[in-house]
Amino acid sequence: MPRVPVPPEVDAFLARPNPAVVATVSPAGAPHTAATWYDWEDGRVFLNMDESRLRLRYMRENPGVALTVLGADDWYAQVTLLGRIVAIDEDPDLAGIDRLSIRYGGGPFHNRAARRFSAWMEPERWSSWPLPR
Amino acid sequence: MPRVPVPPEVDAFLARPNPAVVATVSPAGAPHTAATWYDWEDGRVFLNMDESRLRLRYMRENPGVALTVLGADDWYAQVTLLGRIVAIDEDPDLAGIDRLSIRYGGGPFHNRAARRFSAWMEPERWSSWPLPR
Repeated sequence: MPRVPVPPEVDAFLARPNPAVVATVSPAGAPHTAATWYDWEDGRVFLNMDESRLRLRYMRENPGVALTVLGADDWYAQVTLLGRIVAIDEDPDLAGIDRLSIRYGGGPFHNRAARRFSAWMEPERWSSWPLPR
Repeated sequence: MPRVPVPPEVDAFLARPNPAVVATVSPAGAPHTAATWYDWEDGRVFLNMDESRLRLRYMRENPGVALTVLGADDWYAQVTLLGRIVAIDEDPDLAGIDRLSIRYGGGPFHNRAARRFSAWMEPERWSSWPLPR
């Protein structure tokens, strides 16, 4: 798999609010996956999670993360990013989850009592299929 | 996350040809993800991969696999299965990939020269959101 940066057409694909699935690894070495909202800014992936999520616990222990982003119209048109979590911060005013909720077509996040965390993933390698390699 | 078997409504969801992403773990302990066709039969997941795929190599070394299946209409409606690969077999006549290609609305697989492998995943735990838990 080629190293980043991604080419312009992949950058444009990632900039759209597409479906995505994020994977982390448990302390026992088993993979975990979940559908996720994400944002793409300056070559990094923005994520936000409720404090209860297994993947938040797992990425604190093992920063390795994979993200597969699917095309909104043709889900098999896909981009995968492999990389590492480089920052995890609490989201006390919910600005992080609001950003994702609005990006994906809604208003501010519905649950104002949630305790949530934002994370940045730095991709190292990428692949796409069947977009241009 | 509850243990299998999944309840009937989750079983029905998995029986549809929905978008899915499969995760494996590299020998270095990093996650890898890819969009995938799958089939669901008697509580097990059927997968098929070209011989060149990283995930085929990874699941031979570490049988832990996670699969997130997304709703075809609402992708955030999701079911995740965590489990293990229990069998990997060569698919010499391409019956395995034909089964998936036909399930997802196509005819027999286009590349008859491909060398491919079929794998069965046995789920151990599952979760869904926002389907009934």
